[in-house]
Amino acid sequence: MEGGIELEKVFQYIEENQHLYISWLIEACNQPSVSAQNRGMLEMKELVKAFLGKIGAKVEELPTNGFPIIYGELLSNKEKTLTFYNHYDVQPEDPIDQWLSNPFQSEIRDGKIFARGVADNKGNLIARICAVHAYQQVYGELPINLKFVFEGEEEIGSPHLEYFAKEFPDKLKTDGIIWEGGTRDVEDKRLHVGLGVKGICYVELSCKGANTDLHSSEAAIIENPAWRLVWALSTLKNEQEEIGIEGFYDDITPLNETEKKFIQSIPYNEAVIKKLYGIEQFLNDVTGDELKERLIAEPTCTICGIESGYTGEGSKTVLPSFAKVKLDFRLVPNQKPEKIVQLLRNHLDRKGFTDIEIKQSHGMYPFNTDPNDPFVSVVLQSVEEVYEEPPIIYRNLAGSSPMYKMLNQTNIPAVQIGVANTQSSFHAPNENILIDDYVKGIQMTAAVIKNFS
Amino acid sequence: MEGGIELEKVFQYIEENQHLYISWLIEACNQPSVSAQNRGMLEMKELVKAFLGKIGAKVEELPTNGFPIIYGELLSNKEKTLTFYNHYDVQPEDPIDQWLSNPFQSEIRDGKIFARGVADNKGNLIARICAVHAYQQVYGELPINLKFVFEGEEEIGSPHLEYFAKEFPDKLKTDGIIWEGGTRDVEDKRLHVGLGVKGICYVELSCKGANTDLHSSEAAIIENPAWRLVWALSTLKNEQEEIGIEGFYDDITPLNETEKKFIQSIPYNEAVIKKLYGIEQFLNDVTGDELKERLIAEPTCTICGIESGYTGEGSKTVLPSFAKVKLDFRLVPNQKPEKIVQLLRNHLDRKGFTDIEIKQSHGMYPFNTDPNDPFVSVVLQSVEEVYEEPPIIYRNLAGSSPMYKMLNQTNIPAVQIGVANTQSSFHAPNENILIDDYVKGIQMTAAVIKNFS
Repeated sequence: MEGGIELEKVFQYIEENQHLYISWLIEACNQPSVSAQNRGMLEMKELVKAFLGKIGAKVEELPTNGFPIIYGELLSNKEKTLTFYNHYDVQPEDPIDQWLSNPFQSEIRDGKIFARGVADNKGNLIARICAVHAYQQVYGELPINLKFVFEGEEEIGSPHLEYFAKEFPDKLKTDGIIWEGGTRDVEDKRLHVGLGVKGICYVELSCKGANTDLHSSEAAIIENPAWRLVWALSTLKNEQEEIGIEGFYDDITPLNETEKKFIQSIPYNEAVIKKLYGIEQFLNDVTGDELKERLIAEPTCTICGIESGYTGEGSKTVLPSFAKVKLDFRLVPNQKPEKIVQLLRNHLDRKGFTDIEIKQSHGMYPFNTDPNDPFVSVVLQSVEEVYEEPPIIYRNLAGSSPMYKMLNQTNIPAVQIGVANTQSSFHAPNENILIDDYVKGIQMTAAVIKNFS
Repeated sequence: MEGGIELEKVFQYIEENQHLYISWLIEACNQPSVSAQNRGMLEMKELVKAFLGKIGAKVEELPTNGFPIIYGELLSNKEKTLTFYNHYDVQPEDPIDQWLSNPFQSEIRDGKIFARGVADNKGNLIARICAVHAYQQVYGELPINLKFVFEGEEEIGSPHLEYFAKEFPDKLKTDGIIWEGGTRDVEDKRLHVGLGVKGICYVELSCKGANTDLHSSEAAIIENPAWRLVWALSTLKNEQEEIGIEGFYDDITPLNETEKKFIQSIPYNEAVIKKLYGIEQFLNDVTGDELKERLIAEPTCTICGIESGYTGEGSKTVLPSFAKVKLDFRLVPNQKPEKIVQLLRNHLDRKGFTDIEIKQSHGMYPFNTDPNDPFVSVVLQSVEEVYEEPPIIYRNLAGSSPMYKMLNQTNIPAVQIGVANTQSSFHAPNENILIDDYVKGIQMTAAVIKNFS
């Protein structure tokens, strides 16, 4: 490549071809791929392979016992190898009645693309491919080797990512990973760069009563599993947000002073978030540094869903025969999902709720990348070349991601950057990204490819 | 009518024409009429009018602000007037996946008819009409005047039955009412004769969080309405079944010794019920007289349904924006639904749950008929003429019924007898009655018509 690489030409190509790249994203989003319900997964897998084909990647479908990992390579004996981790599955779209447009027919409104998965994670997956495509169109050859690990089970806890890491050490080998995605603050416009994630432990608790729903007059003498569940839940966390499971906090590595300062340095516009979510105050009225510490460094215990008996219109006088609740615990460094499940079991037994069953649906460890790794600097430099505003670096994002599963046994640095924003409605109705962020995200990815060489 | 009336001839006619009468019942059950969802109500109303037409009743549709009351008369200047109160609406059929046959396509299996509403209350409504029909076919003229009050809003709390009582005193006027229905014990075969009911107060509690569902990582700092509801509920009743709402028990008229003895005299086969419902013990392991007292004379607080967030297959990491619970309180003499709602509001406020909204969907007072009223003897005599086993007389049935609304200002005795049984799955999947009970129920109704003359 004579005369060196000018990123500006690639940026311009991306700018000029954004309609093509938007059409690719829409094509990807319009294909449902709900792993939790095994809906559209086969079709989506083929689509992902076709997209990787557009950039000439050597594509392999790695079978797992679940949905396969689509693995791609663009190797050309370069010194450095960069990997993109993304997932092609999405969350279920309900509550469907709260969507303003069909979640699987992308719609553009107010400079935003609305679709299930557009922020999490198809916008990022496609942006990585577009960046490579644009670079190829402008300069032909790539300055680094590229690997693509696109899994189809992230939204159900990545049960086979560890298997990938163990079974395919050569495919795992890399010098740095751009992990999944990230957000940009809609107000101050600053990009969030993540160096890690909280862990997660997701469980379903269930309780059975009589062998059939009964007329509620029987409730005078027959056990109600909904009450059992309510009583059990009320022992798990109190109104001060203190988790009552014995030993829950024991293993946590407390924040050191450097980490505290790091968290305190992160801007967080409380007024904007309150307005955005329509709330008058944050949980327990916390604010300032305490708020940021809770968000970034505190574990949680969340009712994600609860159901029992009749929940339709009107009134039905029924004694339910079954009750269930979905709970997620977000974990911080040194907490382990399998231990949390054991502590939960012990707790319920001790409180007399031996009749409540626990089913763990997935677990992930927390993970952190060393902020001093040179790869982090490469990413930060790339961000600065695309965005006017300086990025915000997070010790870990508040969400969870299966980083640990893939990178646990390695020293590979992983950094999260992406095309979503703080109003993207992840996992919620009207999920969306800004077209402007999508285009910038493609450009930023291209910059990482160049700067890592 | 020369030679007097032999009930045996009417009984025989019913026996011989049971296929006709079963076909009428199936026709009624196959017409959905879910008042809570306004489904099929118009069609059902017309069907009820057509059935009353078969026995030559003068039919009037009494408009209310909701579903009309279908009122029928067969007057012939007889001394006594008997009224049948029934309802033509049914409960919603969910959970639909637990039905072995279509709830609105009646199916006969093992000598039983399965359909939504067959026990509650179409089996009884049609049985009353069949009894009159059979009597007319055998003897032409009826020995008493008959009135029919068939409402379409019983399953949503009979909001217009009081209006009927007030606006149509002439139509209300009667010497006795066969009220709605009743059950027969499947084991000892004895018919339950009810002289009253518990009251009911049905409310929906709801709580709102952010203005949209959020990614559950936000739960570290944003209020979760599902937790709010769980905490609030846990203050309403404890594991010892003590209702914690201040003042809840204050107004209750305690059982006197006669009533206690009456309740104790009611047989209750605990082993059979435990086996039937697949339970190992009754609530809090109560048994014997205490069990019967709880069932018949204790108020309850029941979670009929609870819902928040994601409740589908798999795991969704969501912070719900809304949570709701449906609660019913069964009330005993001197408790008033409107006061219970006020006590509940006060309680929630006192406990800090001012953010939880209460919506009362319906309320009914408890009601009791004097066991010494001569009409009670007429019914008991009629029961004995049809059933081999002696009936069991209940001071009040454990369920609720809007007796108070219609009869509050009167001295009209109301007795509950009907065609269902203790395994009829009221308000539940696979609702059913025994064909044998249906035929006997028609005969018993014919006997009351004769014996009341």
